[in-house]
Amino acid sequence: MEKQPEVIRDKACMRAWSRRLRFEEGKEKRSLALVPTMGFLHEGHLSLIREARAYADLTVVSIYVNPGQFSPSEDLASYPSDLRGDLRKLSEVGGVDAVFCPGNLYDYGSSDGVVNEGVFAAPTVPAEEAKASSCLEDGGSGHESWIRVESLERGLCGKSRPVFFRGVATVVAKLFNIVEPDVAIFGKKDYQQWRLICRMVRDLDFAVKIIGSEIVREVDGLAMSSRNVRLLHGERDKALSIYKALSEAKSAGLNGQSTCQEIKDLVVQTVSKAGGKIDYAEQAGSAYRSG
Amino acid sequence: MEKQPEVIRDKACMRAWSRRLRFEEGKEKRSLALVPTMGFLHEGHLSLIREARAYADLTVVSIYVNPGQFSPSEDLASYPSDLRGDLRKLSEVGGVDAVFCPGNLYDYGSSDGVVNEGVFAAPTVPAEEAKASSCLEDGGSGHESWIRVESLERGLCGKSRPVFFRGVATVVAKLFNIVEPDVAIFGKKDYQQWRLICRMVRDLDFAVKIIGSEIVREVDGLAMSSRNVRLLHGERDKALSIYKALSEAKSAGLNGQSTCQEIKDLVVQTVSKAGGKIDYAEQAGSAYRSG
Repeated sequence: MEKQPEVIRDKACMRAWSRRLRFEEGKEKRSLALVPTMGFLHEGHLSLIREARAYADLTVVSIYVNPGQFSPSEDLASYPSDLRGDLRKLSEVGGVDAVFCPGNLYDYGSSDGVVNEGVFAAPTVPAEEAKASSCLEDGGSGHESWIRVESLERGLCGKSRPVFFRGVATVVAKLFNIVEPDVAIFGKKDYQQWRLICRMVRDLDFAVKIIGSEIVREVDGLAMSSRNVRLLHGERDKALSIYKALSEAKSAGLNGQSTCQEIKDLVVQTVSKAGGKIDYAEQAGSAYRSG
Repeated sequence: MEKQPEVIRDKACMRAWSRRLRFEEGKEKRSLALVPTMGFLHEGHLSLIREARAYADLTVVSIYVNPGQFSPSEDLASYPSDLRGDLRKLSEVGGVDAVFCPGNLYDYGSSDGVVNEGVFAAPTVPAEEAKASSCLEDGGSGHESWIRVESLERGLCGKSRPVFFRGVATVVAKLFNIVEPDVAIFGKKDYQQWRLICRMVRDLDFAVKIIGSEIVREVDGLAMSSRNVRLLHGERDKALSIYKALSEAKSAGLNGQSTCQEIKDLVVQTVSKAGGKIDYAEQAGSAYRSG
């Protein structure tokens, strides 16, 4: 029977756990891999965890439905969740050392940031000084720092999800600073997200190696996703048309007889014919470009 | 004779040095304080360094004129510098373990971020895959990730320096990720900057304690600044009027007989009379507010 992963809910405890395990006295420094998830785990997530174990001595899985990446019109309230089931799956897959399930990561209580929370407890600013605030600060002490990856966040999924990528970049930075991993694993199903995280890590000099992990599909070819559970019978066929269209596009590209525009039209046609609604279909800059 | 601080120019070497010294084998973990500067050091900087030593076992001073915080109309090209003089002063003040003087921190060579640089060297993505780029990525592989502290970056100095605070927040995050300090010291001369860094650290969960250090003034009251060297004889009096005006404002506020507006007018009057040009004069939200 596999050892149960430790379940950690507090961010200060999470960082302390990470530091204790990575720098255990009398032992060589151990590396740590983080697999960030929003829970409702499926085989795709489990493949990320298996990948993590190949890269590091310790594996932490985070489960956090990040409100920062949902706009008001999106499905934050109905995002599927099943923490008990997730913990059971994580025990079964084995090799997970800790599961980080924080409460609201954007709730700083009454802290205005001047006295740093977390590893340090004692206030360093006299109370009357901490209260003096510029007119700008009268706006409140809510979360207001966002990481923008200004080119990669635009276009593709960014067109229809205006706050998605700034929310993802910001929460990933927060998780990196809390968990302090050496490696983090992201699925290439969310390709734009993976590229954007790589760019953020490079641009902000995070000491984290980013691994992009291959898509895991159902037997019929549908990419695994927590949201698939919401597909009704007829919708599943529509969703499948994406994979079908991309496979056709790949064949056409490799065949070399079609232009970019023709391949794009083919994708639109295949998805539309199945009753799918297309947000965007764009060709990559250099891949699959033919004469 | 004080030990000479180590001079480090490469970011990978800087991080390796920090990790080696903080986690020296057989020794207890040592804490590290960072004092970020743009060089041309004066007594104000040296006071930050003395403060740093009270908070940590190791002190690193960074010297980097950050292009990311200057707009094209600002004085990046003429910002004063004297690295040799700075290193001499840092030796004399004592207790500085390393000086980090990097080259261009925004130059990533041909890396597009997909293969992480720094502590990891080996590529993890097959070459042909790394070359595939979305149309979005055709824009190039330049720096594009910026941290925005959306309320605190507006107003006050933000009004006349549009990219200043995003540049400061971003380079400080980079320095934190490279040097990995436990504590960082900022001067309160740049009050808005200090508050903004505190907010960023809170919002992004950086494991760094931020210390705000008191302003150091010349005998006549002028706040020390690297840019003071550019004041001609007549301009020094104009600059001094800022301190004079703020001192008068403080007295008037403590006296309790003036309204906020009257105090603000007093400041504008005193500076204008001395021939100074005012960018802004604003009252704090709660401090010095009288009946």
